[in-house]
Amino acid sequence: MATEGVVVAKDFAGADMMATFKEIYSKLKEEILQDPIFEFTDESLHWIDRIVDYNVLGGKCNRGFFVIDSYKIFKGVDVLSKEDTFLACTLGWCLEWFQAYFNVHDDIMNNSQTRRGRPCWFRVPKVGLIAVNDGFILRGHVSRFIRRHFKGKPYYVDLINLFTEIDFKTASGKMLDLITTHEGEKDLTKYNVTIHHHIAQYKIAYCSLYLPVACALLLAGENLDNFRNVKNILIEMGTHYQVQDDYLDCFGDPKSTGKIGTDIEKYKCSWLVVQALEHADENQKSILFENYGKPYPACVCKVKDLYKELNLEEMFHEYERKSYNKLITDIEAQPNKHVQNVLKSVLHKIYKRKM
Amino acid sequence: MATEGVVVAKDFAGADMMATFKEIYSKLKEEILQDPIFEFTDESLHWIDRIVDYNVLGGKCNRGFFVIDSYKIFKGVDVLSKEDTFLACTLGWCLEWFQAYFNVHDDIMNNSQTRRGRPCWFRVPKVGLIAVNDGFILRGHVSRFIRRHFKGKPYYVDLINLFTEIDFKTASGKMLDLITTHEGEKDLTKYNVTIHHHIAQYKIAYCSLYLPVACALLLAGENLDNFRNVKNILIEMGTHYQVQDDYLDCFGDPKSTGKIGTDIEKYKCSWLVVQALEHADENQKSILFENYGKPYPACVCKVKDLYKELNLEEMFHEYERKSYNKLITDIEAQPNKHVQNVLKSVLHKIYKRKM
Repeated sequence: MATEGVVVAKDFAGADMMATFKEIYSKLKEEILQDPIFEFTDESLHWIDRIVDYNVLGGKCNRGFFVIDSYKIFKGVDVLSKEDTFLACTLGWCLEWFQAYFNVHDDIMNNSQTRRGRPCWFRVPKVGLIAVNDGFILRGHVSRFIRRHFKGKPYYVDLINLFTEIDFKTASGKMLDLITTHEGEKDLTKYNVTIHHHIAQYKIAYCSLYLPVACALLLAGENLDNFRNVKNILIEMGTHYQVQDDYLDCFGDPKSTGKIGTDIEKYKCSWLVVQALEHADENQKSILFENYGKPYPACVCKVKDLYKELNLEEMFHEYERKSYNKLITDIEAQPNKHVQNVLKSVLHKIYKRKM
Repeated sequence: MATEGVVVAKDFAGADMMATFKEIYSKLKEEILQDPIFEFTDESLHWIDRIVDYNVLGGKCNRGFFVIDSYKIFKGVDVLSKEDTFLACTLGWCLEWFQAYFNVHDDIMNNSQTRRGRPCWFRVPKVGLIAVNDGFILRGHVSRFIRRHFKGKPYYVDLINLFTEIDFKTASGKMLDLITTHEGEKDLTKYNVTIHHHIAQYKIAYCSLYLPVACALLLAGENLDNFRNVKNILIEMGTHYQVQDDYLDCFGDPKSTGKIGTDIEKYKCSWLVVQALEHADENQKSILFENYGKPYPACVCKVKDLYKELNLEEMFHEYERKSYNKLITDIEAQPNKHVQNVLKSVLHKIYKRKM
């Protein structure tokens, strides 16, 4: 149930674009440090500088490039003008900042240890729960960037509302996840495919898949109300992505995924456990109830054996095939070729991914 | 350094208005529970219902009534139309919700025990650090109310930007407070009157004093850019309020204030310690450095004795008098009588307060 690295299978950007993107990062950070909205002391300037570098950098910037590349496709150009590049990169960074804000808070709530190979921000000495406020500061920067660079654009209010809406949807998805998989109150009877899809869609799909495309559409001067089907397809892709993620957590090769799965130990509402609950007989169910969510290797093994017994691997491959076919059909039903291209580019980045 | 109960000396509202205000609360909560932005499960509906009742209710609603009363004065009427009442009450509740969001997060960061006579939300069984997300849910509701009830109003964008700006300023003020008074790194040399005023203004004054008046101005159709002096006066009043708060924490009568001060033990950047540092000789300074921020009654006593020796009580009364006179002069220099009346009503509620 990772919330990071959606759309990771291939890199979006070339080296040149990456250099431009990083230049714009420096410019945006400089803006923040000189923002007249607050009378900074030296100490607070230093603090902000650290929050931003520590939490915004260090990822693959896939969301950021997702905005830029989608925008190019919507415009039907290979190269953007200088102004368009700046605006697309700025919105790209807004997404990276937005993600940093989610990560800081998620790590606190999940009591995580590391993120991107380093201690989570709240575990850094002298930070602690100040990180709750630091998360907001990062969220606040997104609003500052939008105000500074998009005020006066015809889509300014839509852009503000888009971020606000997705912020709220994501928080609602997290709430559902947090109260459903509540530690200390382990109750597998709450887990089912509806809850799984709800969590995947609200917690992941809106901010990781829909938001970048919606930003690109607004940049291209489109009205989001005319692209509801695009939204629905991307949300479905989010579910597809989450199902893959859950599968890889258990059956993926750690050499490819770069991590050792812990969904079973952590009592996650994974697609696998949901399928197992649906297909298990009473005896198999009792094995699940006894062993799911326990930190002992023997219990994890029993769950994994059961997953194999229930043939969940095959069930996953079938799901992946069917879901792909359905998504391709839906995408090809879109009247706009540019839209089809953006959606296909996303789908092909995630389909059959191993990491 | 309380962040609650600003402007508490007198109640704003009559019983009738309170009944109307509470009716509108029920309506707004109903809206949230039926909001199509999220597909709620029964469990998540129940959770939201609890977050809201627990955290939004139970205060004195002074901020909420501050909006309504200021709006009446700006309009020059005693009674508002039904529609105006609804809009003013809705914005009033936005402020109460906004405060609830701050309180939930502040209590986590300050590791507080109780709020409004009950355990802090994050201390309620089964809540814990889910409260970080719950705080956002409350903040998200404010955006939902504004969108639902003010979209289409000429001041819609200004209203969104107002809340966003004050959210960021408040978070910046909190950051300054948190990193300055950082536990484990006690350093009194960082404390001075500039830092004290910065924290008071950004952390308290914008959201507690400026925001309600700014909401009332927008409702009354005014352009906030024309009321920068009003903002400055309210921000100064925020400092005045914070100085009083710091004074009462040490010298107030617990029978009136309803609480036993702990600023000395908690190493707060209080106006008193800032004044003490400024007026103490080397010997007195060493007493402060040795005893400030320690939880032992003997240390607290030594600090209090030093405050008396330095005559801080008299210094406070002089500050209060001078500050009042300055504020009255500034208020009377305002060209608009309604504006004067709103500002005076605030000042008279806080001047010489004992609680």
